[in-house]
Amino acid sequence: MKAYKIPEATVMRLSIYSRYLHQLIDDGVKSVSSDEIAHGVGVSSAQVRKDLAYFGEFGTRGVGYKVEVLYGHLMKILGLDRRWCAIIIGAGKLGSALALYQGFAARGFNVGAILDASPDKIGTKLGEIEVEPLEMMAQRIEEKNITIGIVTVPASAAQEVTDKLIESGVKAILNFSPRVLKVPGNVILRNVDLSVNLEVLSFNLNYLK
Amino acid sequence: MKAYKIPEATVMRLSIYSRYLHQLIDDGVKSVSSDEIAHGVGVSSAQVRKDLAYFGEFGTRGVGYKVEVLYGHLMKILGLDRRWCAIIIGAGKLGSALALYQGFAARGFNVGAILDASPDKIGTKLGEIEVEPLEMMAQRIEEKNITIGIVTVPASAAQEVTDKLIESGVKAILNFSPRVLKVPGNVILRNVDLSVNLEVLSFNLNYLK
Repeated sequence: MKAYKIPEATVMRLSIYSRYLHQLIDDGVKSVSSDEIAHGVGVSSAQVRKDLAYFGEFGTRGVGYKVEVLYGHLMKILGLDRRWCAIIIGAGKLGSALALYQGFAARGFNVGAILDASPDKIGTKLGEIEVEPLEMMAQRIEEKNITIGIVTVPASAAQEVTDKLIESGVKAILNFSPRVLKVPGNVILRNVDLSVNLEVLSFNLNYLK
Repeated sequence: MKAYKIPEATVMRLSIYSRYLHQLIDDGVKSVSSDEIAHGVGVSSAQVRKDLAYFGEFGTRGVGYKVEVLYGHLMKILGLDRRWCAIIIGAGKLGSALALYQGFAARGFNVGAILDASPDKIGTKLGEIEVEPLEMMAQRIEEKNITIGIVTVPASAAQEVTDKLIESGVKAILNFSPRVLKVPGNVILRNVDLSVNLEVLSFNLNYLK
């Protein structure tokens, strides 16, 4: 994991705030206080103010935030005022689930291609996308202007696939494989361990019992 | 999302610290400072000390932490000094991927059963587990002492399935469906949106460019 100036936990909270604000817009709400945001998403209002303060002053004292303005700022900060194109490497269960995951498009992420080494998978369709051979990597990344590579291959293949993604111009890697990957300093790497989600539950089950 | 006394971001960091300490144990390291933990996982050392301070004093000033002792404490705090049994509802691509996910067992989570409504899926095998009909829910939860329900059904079915899980004795719900679920106050609910992982990348791509 790399350290950035903005803590990752802050980025994840900004993402949560933006979803809450989107819901408020849907509900026709025009302005909101940090207390209301805090209550709506389950953090302290001091935390909300601190997180937003990283990016300048958005609110007016005693009046709060204009919902649409703050939402627009947050989406811009998160880089979600544009669309991003991702390539999925590995069309196993997890890769297929991600290729079909509805939540990505809603937040501005397109899956531009999904590749696999197995002849059994190549040519099968996942929604609108056909699984293609690994040899298509460089071509698809270039023609679809793909910046994000999602790695869901077995651990033994993960580093090789990652090296090829980076050679082909990908700038960020989302790694679902259990392998610890090496990437150059100018490439962003995020490792996803799905069991963290269960650990938040086990912590609370344990803590509240 | 519910607010607990310990921020969720802290719990997620404890989980990350515990993985780092596990690696140190594998490497034969006996003691570690908060600076070293901070450097190893990419947060500030003040953050490490603050997170650990929620749970009392573990370290010795100027000496640091005994790796194995701190690891044991963290695993206990996270509720990972015991095994938890989960049931997956929905044997689609995501449910199947989760049923086969190697990372769960490594952190103390067993998948005790996977259920689906579709006759096409019932009877198929995911690793060692056979997909069973939804009607088996109450029986499996009781006999396998299942506390965690993982919901990967379509949005339209998610609330009904969740209600049945809770009736059958599940105490925590991990929701992968896009539906906002209602649960009683004594049940822990965690919504997983996989696109948050991509947003951390888009933020950094945007921020570092």
